[in-house]
Amino acid sequence: MDFNADLGESFGLWERGADDALMEVISSANVAGGFHAGDPTTIRTSVEAAAARGVMVGAHPGFPDLLGFGRRELEVSESALRDYVTYQVGAVRQFAANAGVELHHVKPHGALYMMALDDPAYARAIAEATATVDPALLIYTLRGSQLWDAAQHAGLRPVSEFFADRPVRASGEVVMFRWWEEFDATPEAVAEQAVSVARDSVVKTLEGTNLTIDAETVCVHSDTPGAAEIGRSVRQRLDDSGIAVRAPATA
Amino acid sequence: MDFNADLGESFGLWERGADDALMEVISSANVAGGFHAGDPTTIRTSVEAAAARGVMVGAHPGFPDLLGFGRRELEVSESALRDYVTYQVGAVRQFAANAGVELHHVKPHGALYMMALDDPAYARAIAEATATVDPALLIYTLRGSQLWDAAQHAGLRPVSEFFADRPVRASGEVVMFRWWEEFDATPEAVAEQAVSVARDSVVKTLEGTNLTIDAETVCVHSDTPGAAEIGRSVRQRLDDSGIAVRAPATA
Amino acid sequence: MDFNADLGESFGLWERGADDALMEVISSANVAGGFHAGDPTTIRTSVEAAAARGVMVGAHPGFPDLLGFGRRELEVSESALRDYVTYQVGAVRQFAANAGVELHHVKPHGALYMMALDDPAYARAIAEATATVDPALLIYTLRGSQLWDAAQHAGLRPVSEFFADRPVRASGEVVMFRWWEEFDATPEAVAEQAVSVARDSVVKTLEGTNLTIDAETVCVHSDTPGAAEIGRSVRQRLDDSGIAVRAPATA
Amino acid sequence: MDFNADLGESFGLWERGADDALMEVISSANVAGGFHAGDPTTIRTSVEAAAARGVMVGAHPGFPDLLGFGRRELEVSESALRDYVTYQVGAVRQFAANAGVELHHVKPHGALYMMALDDPAYARAIAEATATVDPALLIYTLRGSQLWDAAQHAGLRPVSEFFADRPVRASGEVVMFRWWEEFDATPEAVAEQAVSVARDSVVKTLEGTNLTIDAETVCVHSDTPGAAEIGRSVRQRLDDSGIAVRAPATA
Repeated sequence: MDFNADLGESFGLWERGADDALMEVISSANVAGGFHAGDPTTIRTSVEAAAARGVMVGAHPGFPDLLGFGRRELEVSESALRDYVTYQVGAVRQFAANAGVELHHVKPHGALYMMALDDPAYARAIAEATATVDPALLIYTLRGSQLWDAAQHAGLRPVSEFFADRPVRASGEVVMFRWWEEFDATPEAVAEQAVSVARDSVVKTLEGTNLTIDAETVCVHSDTPGAAEIGRSVRQRLDDSGIAVRAPATA
Repeated sequence: MDFNADLGESFGLWERGADDALMEVISSANVAGGFHAGDPTTIRTSVEAAAARGVMVGAHPGFPDLLGFGRRELEVSESALRDYVTYQVGAVRQFAANAGVELHHVKPHGALYMMALDDPAYARAIAEATATVDPALLIYTLRGSQLWDAAQHAGLRPVSEFFADRPVRASGEVVMFRWWEEFDATPEAVAEQAVSVARDSVVKTLEGTNLTIDAETVCVHSDTPGAAEIGRSVRQRLDDSGIAVRAPATA
Repeated sequence: MDFNADLGESFGLWERGADDALMEVISSANVAGGFHAGDPTTIRTSVEAAAARGVMVGAHPGFPDLLGFGRRELEVSESALRDYVTYQVGAVRQFAANAGVELHHVKPHGALYMMALDDPAYARAIAEATATVDPALLIYTLRGSQLWDAAQHAGLRPVSEFFADRPVRASGEVVMFRWWEEFDATPEAVAEQAVSVARDSVVKTLEGTNLTIDAETVCVHSDTPGAAEIGRSVRQRLDDSGIAVRAPATA
Repeated sequence: MDFNADLGESFGLWERGADDALMEVISSANVAGGFHAGDPTTIRTSVEAAAARGVMVGAHPGFPDLLGFGRRELEVSESALRDYVTYQVGAVRQFAANAGVELHHVKPHGALYMMALDDPAYARAIAEATATVDPALLIYTLRGSQLWDAAQHAGLRPVSEFFADRPVRASGEVVMFRWWEEFDATPEAVAEQAVSVARDSVVKTLEGTNLTIDAETVCVHSDTPGAAEIGRSVRQRLDDSGIAVRAPATA
């Protein structure tokens, strides 16, 4: 089981995210590409920190919307989106190369992640841009989404993700907005979700039923309140359960 | 003799520069990296157009100052500047790779170009960032500048540039600001400067004296008024004079 | 009949729009507020030019999307949108005050204009922000739209607009995207639409039928190809038809 | 004695500054105008919080440099700078008007503040832009600076400022960069400086000598480490010393 986190989401003097703590417990990092967050220095230091710890480096491209942190839907043409992804992935990839590591995967951010689950044009743009950069790159997304299919169609290997710090409905829907009204993301609760999925491929839904989740990577968001403790708790429970935490192999 | 131009300096719907015309006559293109100008789509289309014509692709990083088009001095730490250059060069380089060509050179833009002539920290940041990306990359700058020295110190080959559409003083100073008050950049006048430097390594100064200029590349700015005609005139005169127009070999 | 145009849509060194020519023929100007286009200097010079000619000054707020020129749908909360409008209107209004004139109206730009036609939250945000700034301000929008209703609800007077350089379908829909595939916006054709609406409250639709349009202001976009000639043609035809071109009175 | 702080320096989801705590103890607030920090929502909530507590609202314009937080020198023409100040002051002033209060003063931010101390063009641009908006506005700056003189020349009343959380050299120079290497800004030390200046017009310099400082306002930066405690300590010591904390009257 891979353990990933979105990192490098500071901007200039503004800091955000429990990056230092999470970097100690994860096996792969999604580094913001500078459009929704991240600046060149933040990208470099994030990539260097990951490389120094053997954490795999992924690019985390987002919409060009600093003001909204990439969490707002934006209408972008398929062609422009392909270019936005190429630009951000290319920049992060250069910092990875400078740090002596290969870029490992691409995971879209925020509203781009969500839109690419359902919209085939957004999904294609991400998948094709990524495949053009390097067909060995993995794509992190939800199993069965449009991006999942587009990645496969582009010759990429998709990696199925589970958000350990977000609740899931019986319908399979992941609650990404106002989730805190329905789920208390304590270190224990998040770790329980992570281990349950990692060990048994099952998560307890908000309705109390069990849902099968077949995931290869679990995510903790670096800006979830208490992310440092959550991250340590997840890693500890995975280790205690004998689940090897390591990034998936590239193609 | 190489013939270069700064291109890809549109942004979103705003267009700027006689790119199409210049692309037909130059041997190397400096593609804006998105900080002072250029957006992902502009970078891609510029790189693709260059690749299709056998024009060498360079990265043209600038200050993060869209409002000032990178033409205003900005105080940037050496460390941050290195990261800005890496980011922009990395992004342009990815588009070059996607287009099937190698990045050929780096030429800083505007105020960054000027500051790197005199300031060793700015010069070092550019040279070291470039050398880390790829030691085969060339650096376009003025012979004898701080950036010239820094490039050599970083193991890069500097390429000496002459601005064919700007006047030179007897002191050797290139007039970059309000130059139009002192020089009438007609297609004939610019071509005359280009050919004079290419054939005889000499330029007529504003004071009327001859100045020795030992240049490997001549530049025409894509936003100099009449740039399309100027570019064609320069190329025609170079061809007529039997001077081979081709980009310098990388290291 | 008022004749309005969106102006001040340059940014830094990037110029856009036939502002100078249009300023000579219009009775009200919509000055971009700096989010989708426009910078402080462009706003000042646009406002000063309008004030010098007795052209009424309106604010033209847009989405914070320079890269997309405010023409792409963006998800913004009602609360944030109210603040975006307040900020841009406040800034333009200050330049108007500096030039010795009162701000006259607010007209949203691009995708914000379109979304506010149908979405009550976007419409409310614009109307309420405007009413808070000054209840005498007019709102330019399409008659019967959500923004029309929201303006009235906020105590503002809406002014019904007709886009003279865009075609209309028999359904009443204005074609804003790829309109050029269906309509040849010659100076004559646009002027014909303007005069037809101004004199007879009728426009010929793409299907060839007549549609009643009850408009108080006709708009020509400053970036429609040939905008200068179109603007002069519209004004000439309105003058020749004895239709007084003047801005509507504020409340 | 006035007690001021720079506030509203968050941006989108990125938070910065001990705004809530400082708002309880200050008598005037400098609200970032959106160029170096601050976004429309942050400006509104900051202005509303100040208005609700009777804290005077000032505008805090900075360079257009989010990435550098306005702390880096930027070359701006006098004309453009005047427009930048007008734009930011106009926007903040609109939010003040919406909250039912008058804008009280203008205080430039960061590198703009520092450059305006010595550069007459920068000083003039700020003073003239402010005077055009409203000649009753106060200008916060250092006594005897270029901005001090320019404010007076423009008919504005300058208010002399003392940075209570920064050390001063015997030469009179305020240490703004790497000051923490020379000064331990504990709540006690800062309060001691504030009270010493307020009561005795004297500060102890880094060299141990006494320096006369004739100030009308003391400043604590909202991002100085421990700013909340520092602010409370300053206010407590001023109150305990019988020094009335109130904003200076406008002209």
